[in-house]
Amino acid sequence: MDHQKVGNGASSGGGQRLIRRVVDILLETWEHQTDEGGKILDFNMPDKLMKIFTLELGEKGAADDELVPICQSIVDLSLHAGHPAFYNQLWGGLDEYGLLSAWMVEALHTSVYTYEVAPLFTLMETYLIQHIGKELIGYPDVDNIGGLFNAGGSISNMMAIQLARYKQNPSVKTRGNHAFDKPLIILTSVEAHYSIQKAANVLGIGTDNVWKVPTDDNGCMRPNKLEEEIGRAGKEGKLPVMVNATSGTTVLGAYDPLDQVAKICEKHKIWMHVDAAWGGAVMLSPKLRHTMKGIERADSVTWNPHKMLGLPLQTALLITRHKGLLLECNSNKSSYLFQSDKFYDAEYDIGDKTFVCGRKNDALKLWLTWKGRGKADLTAAVENAFDMAEYLAELLRDREGFQLVLPKVQCTNVCFWYIPPSMRGTVDWKSESFREKLGKVAPCLKKRMMEKGSLFIGYQPNENRNLPNFFRMVIHCNPRPTRENMHFVVEEIERLGADL
Amino acid sequence: MDHQKVGNGASSGGGQRLIRRVVDILLETWEHQTDEGGKILDFNMPDKLMKIFTLELGEKGAADDELVPICQSIVDLSLHAGHPAFYNQLWGGLDEYGLLSAWMVEALHTSVYTYEVAPLFTLMETYLIQHIGKELIGYPDVDNIGGLFNAGGSISNMMAIQLARYKQNPSVKTRGNHAFDKPLIILTSVEAHYSIQKAANVLGIGTDNVWKVPTDDNGCMRPNKLEEEIGRAGKEGKLPVMVNATSGTTVLGAYDPLDQVAKICEKHKIWMHVDAAWGGAVMLSPKLRHTMKGIERADSVTWNPHKMLGLPLQTALLITRHKGLLLECNSNKSSYLFQSDKFYDAEYDIGDKTFVCGRKNDALKLWLTWKGRGKADLTAAVENAFDMAEYLAELLRDREGFQLVLPKVQCTNVCFWYIPPSMRGTVDWKSESFREKLGKVAPCLKKRMMEKGSLFIGYQPNENRNLPNFFRMVIHCNPRPTRENMHFVVEEIERLGADL
Repeated sequence: MDHQKVGNGASSGGGQRLIRRVVDILLETWEHQTDEGGKILDFNMPDKLMKIFTLELGEKGAADDELVPICQSIVDLSLHAGHPAFYNQLWGGLDEYGLLSAWMVEALHTSVYTYEVAPLFTLMETYLIQHIGKELIGYPDVDNIGGLFNAGGSISNMMAIQLARYKQNPSVKTRGNHAFDKPLIILTSVEAHYSIQKAANVLGIGTDNVWKVPTDDNGCMRPNKLEEEIGRAGKEGKLPVMVNATSGTTVLGAYDPLDQVAKICEKHKIWMHVDAAWGGAVMLSPKLRHTMKGIERADSVTWNPHKMLGLPLQTALLITRHKGLLLECNSNKSSYLFQSDKFYDAEYDIGDKTFVCGRKNDALKLWLTWKGRGKADLTAAVENAFDMAEYLAELLRDREGFQLVLPKVQCTNVCFWYIPPSMRGTVDWKSESFREKLGKVAPCLKKRMMEKGSLFIGYQPNENRNLPNFFRMVIHCNPRPTRENMHFVVEEIERLGADL
Repeated sequence: MDHQKVGNGASSGGGQRLIRRVVDILLETWEHQTDEGGKILDFNMPDKLMKIFTLELGEKGAADDELVPICQSIVDLSLHAGHPAFYNQLWGGLDEYGLLSAWMVEALHTSVYTYEVAPLFTLMETYLIQHIGKELIGYPDVDNIGGLFNAGGSISNMMAIQLARYKQNPSVKTRGNHAFDKPLIILTSVEAHYSIQKAANVLGIGTDNVWKVPTDDNGCMRPNKLEEEIGRAGKEGKLPVMVNATSGTTVLGAYDPLDQVAKICEKHKIWMHVDAAWGGAVMLSPKLRHTMKGIERADSVTWNPHKMLGLPLQTALLITRHKGLLLECNSNKSSYLFQSDKFYDAEYDIGDKTFVCGRKNDALKLWLTWKGRGKADLTAAVENAFDMAEYLAELLRDREGFQLVLPKVQCTNVCFWYIPPSMRGTVDWKSESFREKLGKVAPCLKKRMMEKGSLFIGYQPNENRNLPNFFRMVIHCNPRPTRENMHFVVEEIERLGADL
């Protein structure tokens, strides 16, 4: 590239532009992401990777002919999250609408804070918030639906606590937490995502003031325990400011009973937030949405279409039925950005509702994917993911050497142990030494699958239940999983663990 | 696209894939972004735009042949931030390395929290933090340089306050702000970015506890006033927890005197943060970096290469010389993600240092741009931007009908009034009616430039100085501005305002 003509559309000499050469590599790789035999990742240990790839930057720039192989090497050494055997995280997959819309976002470089620099995208964001609030959550008071796209679910959850705190006492904005004469308490289940605790730290509430409500056998919050904890807070002179219910917990996939939680929150006048970052996609399906019955009673909802729906990171929303509150709580009316004397209605400048300034145009990703696939197809994809989770669970129930962690699969995370051949005669769940030995199986298999690059599944213990390491298999919407994919998982684990 | 084959690399019938068709549109548009006569934006009022573009989403998906014109229309109705006459925000421009690296980030879909899903990118981020801390900031204790890429400068500034608060009293993490028996105070200049106040709100410190230190004629923090305010805090029984100095203020482009601020912070043992989000690019230039003399004494530094350097939004860093503190302050050791029994050293999992969970791979954008252009070229681009700012100021000083707001241009934002012909005989800066009339000129011209699409410059008043609306012209590194571009700005304003 000619540095004097950066961005001028000039080609570098006789050859094809750098960007077109690398785009060919990227599309070629993407088009073959689901090929049989392809690796999910060519894994190298850090020391080795630092030798394979030279990170050092210098004074002089690299010519295009040097850069193309560097870009190829970056591609070769990176994860391919669209591989059908990538089940490691709550996100994954990269379909055509996702990649296309993400590339459009980058090519149409802007920040969605004001209408003047993002006219279509600010309208699009507002439309999606309204549409989802009305059609998926089912908020009855349509005029009071508000929200925004955030840089991930942790930010959405943090913002929900911030709203709850502000609603309780608006002077917190100017005076800080000292506006409260009591410590604030946040209630959430023991199985909830760690972002609640991280947010309590940031917000100056403190992690000790996140009280964890026990769950039932399926990992769902126990409403009577929630009520007990609220009572305890009162007795201890503390102020419960928010209850966080989860729709689809991170590991077990549990859905807290929203209607029962709502009833308690209404009785005690506590803000009810629902973290549906992972499991919220069931709202698309008339068949599946019963697990979120009562969602329309929530004061605010987190939902990340970049998780189960397989959209690109980050596509994450916070939606609330208190429309004006976000602006009230966060606005600063900065006069260089949100001028009140604009020639269009300044209400279209949506950026003062949040505590960040520049903000990515994440709405386009959801809008274009929805436009291209249609709601019916998105719904079918979610239902297929649930069918596959049930199918896998069925396979594992009948298979020697596998053991499900929960009797019932509630979401599309399927948690299980693999018990290798040498341990099958010694199964004794009460024995500490058996459990300790079993806890080493998943890390060992994880190492093997990563080295081979054939399968990616995460593992973890469950400290609340004193369970040793088990696999958490996460099933997404795309690439659309099949029964054959599920058989592959089981057989690949058996192959990798046959000698254990 | 065949929905049953999403992500499978199958083509939709006989035609070219959707993504390749739209990529052609995007690249075509990008390659012509700097053509003469092209509009920055085809501006429409919200009501009209909602008629031109149908936002409604439905049950059924759209076929590729329907989607291509929709994508074309999205492109046509969006901002072209790479247009050479876009001077509206602190970000702008879209060069080849920027677009290419941003597209790579999206195609190599991952989250930079763990080494296992982002091996190269976690190493790249760590390398860049180290490299910038050492080579640009000049931290002497190289082993203690830490930091991370954040979703924008507001998050970095918030995190800096969080670090300062934690350093003062680590029990804030568990106990919240009630761990302090005194209200916390943050000190910053009256010209600093609004994110400091927004962060104080989120952190439960309260916006009243952000004390604004007066500035001198150039908009730089007055050190003696800072010292006075620290003294006042002590007398009022309050605890100053952080001083935020700015390198390149948002509107006036002022550089606070870092060495003097550092001396005061060291004396009073207060965390010194430098918000160099906008002006930090001078660290690249031996000729210009004197305005940030003392930066190596800062406890933490915010720098956004997506601003002056023209990288894609978001490319934003927080760097600190207290390496271990970010992890200590934020870590939660979640056992499903940051397992301690991994087969590689878990220190390579960098995600527990922050309060978000999933995080975009922003490091690649800076790395690839730096690799392609080299430091020498980046430096030359920054120096050219400063030269052009000086050149424009020179033009305006001599030109009838223009008036600079500050005598001296410190950064590449040039602030000025345009005094239209009919007002030139009535110039009286002490007259309230003159000032009121002048304050209406910039909004009127802004409307005209947006309608024509030929020029984008922001405006604002300055309440601290009681100044009516003036233009803030922001000069970036790319597309590399020329003297002709500066002449165009002056002449275009004259054309648009000739009849006023």
